Amino acid sequence: MPVGTQATVKAIMPRDLETEVDAPIILANTYHLFLRPGHDTVEKLGGLHKFMNWPRAILTDSGGFQVFSLSDLRKIHEEGVEFASHLNGDRHLFTPESTVDVQLALGSDILMVLDECTEYPATYERARESMELTVRWAQRAFSHYRGPRADREEQQALFPIVQGGMHRDLRRGCAESLLELNSYGYAIGGLSVGEPRPDSLAMVEETAPLLPSTKPRYVMGVGLPKELPEYVARGVDMMDCVMPSRNARNGCLFTSQGRVIIKNSKYKEDAAPLDPACDCYTCRNFSRAYLRHLFLAQEILFSMLATLHNLRHYLDIMRQMRKAILVGQFPQYLQGVRAIPAEAPE
Amino acid sequence: MPVGTQATVKAIMPRDLETEVDAPIILANTYHLFLRPGHDTVEKLGGLHKFMNWPRAILTDSGGFQVFSLSDLRKIHEEGVEFASHLNGDRHLFTPESTVDVQLALGSDILMVLDECTEYPATYERARESMELTVRWAQRAFSHYRGPRADREEQQALFPIVQGGMHRDLRRGCAESLLELNSYGYAIGGLSVGEPRPDSLAMVEETAPLLPSTKPRYVMGVGLPKELPEYVARGVDMMDCVMPSRNARNGCLFTSQGRVIIKNSKYKEDAAPLDPACDCYTCRNFSRAYLRHLFLAQEILFSMLATLHNLRHYLDIMRQMRKAILVGQFPQYLQGVRAIPAEAPE
Repeated sequence: MPVGTQATVKAIMPRDLETEVDAPIILANTYHLFLRPGHDTVEKLGGLHKFMNWPRAILTDSGGFQVFSLSDLRKIHEEGVEFASHLNGDRHLFTPESTVDVQLALGSDILMVLDECTEYPATYERARESMELTVRWAQRAFSHYRGPRADREEQQALFPIVQGGMHRDLRRGCAESLLELNSYGYAIGGLSVGEPRPDSLAMVEETAPLLPSTKPRYVMGVGLPKELPEYVARGVDMMDCVMPSRNARNGCLFTSQGRVIIKNSKYKEDAAPLDPACDCYTCRNFSRAYLRHLFLAQEILFSMLATLHNLRHYLDIMRQMRKAILVGQFPQYLQGVRAIPAEAPE
Repeated sequence: MPVGTQATVKAIMPRDLETEVDAPIILANTYHLFLRPGHDTVEKLGGLHKFMNWPRAILTDSGGFQVFSLSDLRKIHEEGVEFASHLNGDRHLFTPESTVDVQLALGSDILMVLDECTEYPATYERARESMELTVRWAQRAFSHYRGPRADREEQQALFPIVQGGMHRDLRRGCAESLLELNSYGYAIGGLSVGEPRPDSLAMVEETAPLLPSTKPRYVMGVGLPKELPEYVARGVDMMDCVMPSRNARNGCLFTSQGRVIIKNSKYKEDAAPLDPACDCYTCRNFSRAYLRHLFLAQEILFSMLATLHNLRHYLDIMRQMRKAILVGQFPQYLQGVRAIPAEAPE
């Protein structure tokens, strides 16, 4: 899922996200939209789909992660999390119930429960307490969500989030508790928080098999192009990451031949397309030399062309995997990916 | 002509410049491209059209204006102008001959001669000396340009530039001298340098009738939407201005109903399109409220959608005028435009 934090996937028009990238679903951030323009405003304007002119699916996170990473003065207690806006310092309270309401107002197709994203590293005790709070919050979120509108669930699904730090038995315990909620899908959170990559994979390996294979399993906030097949191999169906779009803006481009750091002088007169194997607007029409020029000149068009390509590359990987799975060739696909030398900055 | 300073019209894809804005010609800046990526590099990569993937016409300025406005330590003498790059301080010399060569290397369709853009205000004596230098430089540029390749002229036209400050007889004298060059088109420069708007119009009114009406007459660096018909009424065929694209990025949008300063709080929940009379991608798909949100959130998509609209608005005005002229209704069109209250920031 491309990340559209503030009701826009940065530097790409919704039209190109549909036709060039062909993303079936994007993610938007509840924390950001709650603060600006406000969920009430979005609701009055017909909901997020209409507001940003995105006809396909939207998943919104609960806002919890951004409270922990962006805002100062946050204070967690049983009721919820108090925090100060990173924009103007205004104080707010998010509760499991209120973040459901905010996401319903936004009109999300998939809502996420408020969780506490356990920091890394965390002791067993700390991770256990945090995970148990996440479970209690998930139970409250579901009671609130199902209470008045039992029919809502087929339109706007709510996913709980497995936490538990880097502790296998806490992950298992959390997953088991959340299964009782019998939700339409499940997420695995608390990864990509600074832990070594093997730990992320180990936690997913421990957790994913406990979640129903007939329902979407979503790992939040991952990963590199080479890692996507590793997660899929462990049973993951959905991922989101700012990396393709953020790295694009920083001049790091993902291609079928590895990473291209576009500022490198070797591209100065390189007339070849960024990725000869790619069929996106950028690769069909522009040279590496032109992209390098735009990057060095700090032109907005660089961010536009780079974002379009990187997102297309990510979505192409997902499409390749889907196809490989359908024809029963995923193990071979995975083997092929693993045989490619590790991606490293040049 | 949309301005594409560094081989890109900022924040718009060439595809949209063709299909949404439908610009027949754009301008690129010789000074900028000479410094980065260098005209040799552009030539090696197949010329500017291929480099930036723009199949339609390109006009390049001579670089003179940017030398005067951007670079330090410039020193003008008969031979040409010495200057220090605003990027890294490297010293360079532009001569009437060298800037023709740079523009030929870029592959421009319309080249401009090196001129001295007289500052405002300038005494009669100062403006006279400056204008005479511009005439001598134009003569040298044409000798150099026509010397080896008499056949070149039909492929890559060279336009001289009328200078003369705000002095009517200097403008006349300059125009008369330049007419001897019998070029494919003529420009009027040295306007939009700080003079009152009535002075700009007066200088054009004085100069344009002296230039052949059968050839393109180009006023450099103007103007506001309401001013375009005034220039056309005085015989002008071509104009360029950064205003539609620069103002777009600053949140100032031109519409059929006047200027929209999008940050204004009155647009917070305004579900209407930016310009109900406009058929561009931005106006077809997004509300003022969404545009305001993107602007306040400093999102790149704001610059993209705003640029697309403002350029479309400018080109639509040009198309309306062309149509009015063809059906003999231009005087009525002009009258209609003049009846609209003056545009002022809100």
